[in-house]
Amino acid sequence: MANNIAKKVSWSGEGTPLLNGAEESRYSGQTSGSSMFHIGRMSTVDLEEEAITTEEQDPVRHRPSEIPHNEKLLSLKYESLDYDNSENQLFLEEERRMSPMGFRCLEISRWFICGLIGILTGLIACFIDVVVEKLAGAKYKVVKEDIEKFTEDGGLSISLLLWVVLNSAFVMFGSIIVAFIEPIAAGSGIPQIKCYLNGVKMPRVVRLKTLVVKVCGVICSVVGGLAVGKEGPMIHSGAVVAAGVSQGRSTSLKKDFKIFEYFRRDTEKRDFVSAGAAAGVSAAFGAPVGGVLFSLEEGASFWNQMLTWRIFFASMISTFTLNFFMSIQKGELGELSNPGLINFGTFASESVQYNLYEIPLFILMGAIGGLLGALFNVLNYWLTIFRIRYVHRRYLQVMEAMLVAAVSASVSFTMIYFSTDCQPLKKESLEEYPLQLFCADGEYNAMATTFFNTPERSVMSLFHSPPGTYNLLTLGLFTLTYFLLACWTYGLTVSAGVFIPSLLIGAAWGRLFGIVLTLISPNKISIWADPGKYALMGAAAQLGGIVRMTLSLTVILVEATGNVTYGLPIMLVLMTAKIVGDYFIEGLYDIHIRLQSVPFLHWEAPATSHWLTAREVMSSPVTCFKRVEKVGTIVDVLSATSTNHNGFPVIMQSDRDDEPGKLCGLILRSQLIVLLKHKVFVERARSRLYQRRMQLKDFRDAYPRFPPIQSIHVSQDERECMMDLTEFMNPTPYTVPEETSLPRVFKLFRALGLRHLVVVDDVNRVMGLVTRKDLARYHLGKHGLEELDLAHP
Amino acid sequence: MANNIAKKVSWSGEGTPLLNGAEESRYSGQTSGSSMFHIGRMSTVDLEEEAITTEEQDPVRHRPSEIPHNEKLLSLKYESLDYDNSENQLFLEEERRMSPMGFRCLEISRWFICGLIGILTGLIACFIDVVVEKLAGAKYKVVKEDIEKFTEDGGLSISLLLWVVLNSAFVMFGSIIVAFIEPIAAGSGIPQIKCYLNGVKMPRVVRLKTLVVKVCGVICSVVGGLAVGKEGPMIHSGAVVAAGVSQGRSTSLKKDFKIFEYFRRDTEKRDFVSAGAAAGVSAAFGAPVGGVLFSLEEGASFWNQMLTWRIFFASMISTFTLNFFMSIQKGELGELSNPGLINFGTFASESVQYNLYEIPLFILMGAIGGLLGALFNVLNYWLTIFRIRYVHRRYLQVMEAMLVAAVSASVSFTMIYFSTDCQPLKKESLEEYPLQLFCADGEYNAMATTFFNTPERSVMSLFHSPPGTYNLLTLGLFTLTYFLLACWTYGLTVSAGVFIPSLLIGAAWGRLFGIVLTLISPNKISIWADPGKYALMGAAAQLGGIVRMTLSLTVILVEATGNVTYGLPIMLVLMTAKIVGDYFIEGLYDIHIRLQSVPFLHWEAPATSHWLTAREVMSSPVTCFKRVEKVGTIVDVLSATSTNHNGFPVIMQSDRDDEPGKLCGLILRSQLIVLLKHKVFVERARSRLYQRRMQLKDFRDAYPRFPPIQSIHVSQDERECMMDLTEFMNPTPYTVPEETSLPRVFKLFRALGLRHLVVVDDVNRVMGLVTRKDLARYHLGKHGLEELDLAHP
Repeated sequence: MANNIAKKVSWSGEGTPLLNGAEESRYSGQTSGSSMFHIGRMSTVDLEEEAITTEEQDPVRHRPSEIPHNEKLLSLKYESLDYDNSENQLFLEEERRMSPMGFRCLEISRWFICGLIGILTGLIACFIDVVVEKLAGAKYKVVKEDIEKFTEDGGLSISLLLWVVLNSAFVMFGSIIVAFIEPIAAGSGIPQIKCYLNGVKMPRVVRLKTLVVKVCGVICSVVGGLAVGKEGPMIHSGAVVAAGVSQGRSTSLKKDFKIFEYFRRDTEKRDFVSAGAAAGVSAAFGAPVGGVLFSLEEGASFWNQMLTWRIFFASMISTFTLNFFMSIQKGELGELSNPGLINFGTFASESVQYNLYEIPLFILMGAIGGLLGALFNVLNYWLTIFRIRYVHRRYLQVMEAMLVAAVSASVSFTMIYFSTDCQPLKKESLEEYPLQLFCADGEYNAMATTFFNTPERSVMSLFHSPPGTYNLLTLGLFTLTYFLLACWTYGLTVSAGVFIPSLLIGAAWGRLFGIVLTLISPNKISIWADPGKYALMGAAAQLGGIVRMTLSLTVILVEATGNVTYGLPIMLVLMTAKIVGDYFIEGLYDIHIRLQSVPFLHWEAPATSHWLTAREVMSSPVTCFKRVEKVGTIVDVLSATSTNHNGFPVIMQSDRDDEPGKLCGLILRSQLIVLLKHKVFVERARSRLYQRRMQLKDFRDAYPRFPPIQSIHVSQDERECMMDLTEFMNPTPYTVPEETSLPRVFKLFRALGLRHLVVVDDVNRVMGLVTRKDLARYHLGKHGLEELDLAHP
Repeated sequence: MANNIAKKVSWSGEGTPLLNGAEESRYSGQTSGSSMFHIGRMSTVDLEEEAITTEEQDPVRHRPSEIPHNEKLLSLKYESLDYDNSENQLFLEEERRMSPMGFRCLEISRWFICGLIGILTGLIACFIDVVVEKLAGAKYKVVKEDIEKFTEDGGLSISLLLWVVLNSAFVMFGSIIVAFIEPIAAGSGIPQIKCYLNGVKMPRVVRLKTLVVKVCGVICSVVGGLAVGKEGPMIHSGAVVAAGVSQGRSTSLKKDFKIFEYFRRDTEKRDFVSAGAAAGVSAAFGAPVGGVLFSLEEGASFWNQMLTWRIFFASMISTFTLNFFMSIQKGELGELSNPGLINFGTFASESVQYNLYEIPLFILMGAIGGLLGALFNVLNYWLTIFRIRYVHRRYLQVMEAMLVAAVSASVSFTMIYFSTDCQPLKKESLEEYPLQLFCADGEYNAMATTFFNTPERSVMSLFHSPPGTYNLLTLGLFTLTYFLLACWTYGLTVSAGVFIPSLLIGAAWGRLFGIVLTLISPNKISIWADPGKYALMGAAAQLGGIVRMTLSLTVILVEATGNVTYGLPIMLVLMTAKIVGDYFIEGLYDIHIRLQSVPFLHWEAPATSHWLTAREVMSSPVTCFKRVEKVGTIVDVLSATSTNHNGFPVIMQSDRDDEPGKLCGLILRSQLIVLLKHKVFVERARSRLYQRRMQLKDFRDAYPRFPPIQSIHVSQDERECMMDLTEFMNPTPYTVPEETSLPRVFKLFRALGLRHLVVVDDVNRVMGLVTRKDLARYHLGKHGLEELDLAHP
């Protein structure tokens, strides 16, 4: 029973130093608080690795997973989720006992849970929105009064200071809770949810604590005036709600409601998390269909009609709940036509027309969006690398966040201060806090509309303000500064999304584009007169250029604008932005996933990988167990620092020890742990006299935080006992022959959401095991197929 | 090498008589013109079977597949499509030779083809629309003038006769081409496309001839005044276009462009057909996103991001093309805001609001829609059974279609004649052919607006006409008569869709519902004043109740109305309609699929099927070939009337003949046919001296109409030769152990789109074969799991 990691590490150049004496605990995610990292690798590591190792010495918790280490490596620290049911005897017995009525009840519970997910997600969105509005309103009111007071007296530097301090305070609080309490709550959470839905277990990503930190964090970031949005985090929040509700218990609160026990496995949980993510999108943008498509685009590989309907239902309920409570909050009870956290406002029917000759313009805007998006991503990539190297300590992270908050406020103030773009104040104006500053009476500062406002309101203003509201210089300066601010902000240790800043940047340059068009067109074609249309296209182009989603984003934007006429141009813009952007660099989320070395599986194997077969891809030799195995052997294998595997093929007893045995099942580490914990042993002498009868419930109760092997005490006597795995192993694991090509293996793996795929020879003997990391290693680079190295964290 | 059908037929009670001496040709679809049906089953069949057999005696072609035989049977006449690539040595060599640039070119061709599909589908939609508008316009003009002439003179029976004759003439032509030239072009084509995307090969469904007949047929039906729409057939048309364009040749026209040869296999073709169907929906309703969702909801099981984008692209181009050419046709070049064949018209922003207390009303409407839909389906089900028994001859079918046309015209005329609902004629009225009849000058007959019009215009009128346009009696009578007419019409031997009639019925009773609400509400709440909103909800409810789609239909309706505000209520309505309707009977398309005994695979195995294992489900024993097999044996097996299999496991030579051999590959009938045709033999004496070098091209050229074995002449000498299958078989077929549970087998089969799944024992010996029919046989009935019988056609 050799170590199947050994083969892998022998290749890597860059990865090798990391493995000196390093061990990995597959359960680090479940055992925060106890350190299991060995500190014996300081000798050969370079600056970058040193940074990480230092961080890891910290005994309280390991390095926040937002911070990547090396993009050329594939981290082994991530476990996979098990989307393939382990159909062992216990499971089959339970399923067979269940009546058709039982299945119907299960189905009804699924719908019920989805409804609950929708309601809770909607309520959270509502809560965030109300709190942000109140706090931001109070903040802007205080600052506005202060500015108005000092505009005449000439002490505006005091106003600036007030603004900076207020912002920094909020951001400091938001940053501290993220950095010190739950680092995985940083960022928008979309990369994490993408990974989760892809089948990678991100530690602590769907915990209650994460949700609380996320919600508080995002409120602080938005109120703190950072160039961020509150929409991305809603997706993460929805996912956490779903993971929590569907399990019928909270491990953090130590409360088990004893319901929904059937759903305590990865397969079911994933389905609910998809629904939660969709509900989050739906609440954020008032886009239920967009939410469903987001879930599918990012997560699902196997499209199931019933599941899609449930996801749809959750999305629908989520929008509805938000809508309903917002209507109460606004005092228009029951007025349900304005869903979503962000509402782009309805485009009037007259202004939504577009013409054939505008299509090339839209495509041009898409290309600009793709270029600007790629620039954004490249800058953010460098910044992230910089942060990995130099800003890895927590207090530094908090300080950086505060610095950004202070700079944001100062820049905004400076821009407003030096702006001379005064506009007449109208009654029906969209601006809630018009700043007069040095403008004449009855006028307001146009620059302040964009900066002295929550980003959502700025976007709406750019979309809908009548022509002439902004001048060219204002828009140009705003685009430039906001672009840099947003780029600097993304990746800070705060909870915040990148959707709204992207839309805002795009809306600004889009409006600029529209105004320029009107100016240069010789005879002022009237259809170009409305810059709001171009602002919308610019917003789509910029967002598409940064995140590179197409289908779901189109639907989200169409639903958020409340108008389908723009569907076609938005699609064109998004596709152009994606094509242009992809030429330079990946999407922002993919960059961050790659920098974290997550073994992310794409939709298909690299095109040129047909020459690889399962034989080359698999890990081999594999640690196997016999059908009736000695407890001591099992404990030793599980405890061994080098064989941190999660799945073990079970083989028939073979006559010779060196010959691989015939496959007869597959058992998971988690199952073995539960069996060891419950002492399901057979004493050698009295064969099978007593064996505790295990139930599926025992496994479900331990899910998903199975204890580490170290916490289970097995006495010397017990080590001599035997354990009969027959009942617990999956007797029909999927297998492939050794000659199977990589794309074929990949397809099977991806379509069924597998975690382990056993490679067998022509008489069904175990030859190797294919896991996620074996497949994720290959990717198509500039010079054909490339192989990533594997590294322990 | 025994017959693996033998086991199956021994079960059936009802199915047995059908099998007396019956043989099935798997190639009947490809060899129309030659009869291969044995006529030796007349003795034991009952009336129903007799009807079919009589039909089948017809030497020219067999019974049109629109006509079902017995819903308790599962027909064996349908082949499966092969969505799993046969990764044999030839294929792998080709893939390995291909450079990354080659793959990029392939990808570009895929996009190019999708663009082409979109353009052609859009053009077809445009053609249908223009021709229908012109012809229907001419017809209504003639009849209107005639009616106006005779209203005063009092000879209206002549007008009626004119109307009846005109309608019947159109319908007769449409029905004749469908019944005598291409019976599969009957109906909307959606059930057929559903089956195709599900993986069932429907003979002739994607042929050029089918497309031509479909297009002409639908024009005739719509112009002939039947209660039908032209939207459903667009989906079929799009699919045919896709299947044709993607293959780079037309077998019907005997033209091979020698391009896109790589795409000549089921996997690639299916992807393009999905895109075509989506483009069809997109062109029909101006709903590109709805089209994508339709394709996914009905077809895809494995969701692939790139594929989805291509489908999206095709949809987008299709809408755009239609839009562009329609704008030219209407003389407003470049005005692109009105996509789709049917346009529900934009709902004005003021009237789109809805309120919380309307939600229960919408849900109630959904329930009504579900009930009425179920009633529609039940009636149509009985009617279809009746048609199977008594209306199976072609001239009867044509006569029935003409009868329906005549009755439709007469009923419409009678309704208009006796209607006393006169409305003042307005200038901006939506009615193109207002009939004055007995109304006062300056007024028109309201009943005529609904009946004396193409259904699309009637729907628009019901949605948008101002309150007071229709009175209660008009709407009630219209609903009733149109419901019965539409129900009678669906299933006629004409090309026609059920979408528009459903929408029209629903819009009528929805408007009625709205008017009643206004009447009974005590203080005339203003928000209920607009009956157009209720017409829309009623239309959604009725359509949902009949076809039972939810997600895609919501998006289609939202896109067709050009307004997302109604998204939520439409969703609620559709879900309610589905839940209520499903309680009584399946959706209309599913009924027709079931009546055709198609082995349709649903999304998941029946919930209570865990007690079944592969051992019980599989067909066994299996006809296998040796790796190097005698040509005579192969020819005998392929020609044998009893072993009409399509896939044969290839086994290693075993010492004993009665023992099942070890699996080493899988070969398809089609591959063997090509090998036999090219005489890829090895003479026994001169071992391997000459063997023609085969290429993938040889297989692709024969795709998809492989010749029947009977057409291949193999001499007695050649029969003694050997054939080496090693290079051509798929060496890595997917396998499962015998103990695998049915849901697990099902999941593997469905997720990967398999056609054959080999069941092996623990030393990899072939124990059985699972095919589509083995899985489709099980379904969850009222009393638990039920098993359908299998029957030869």
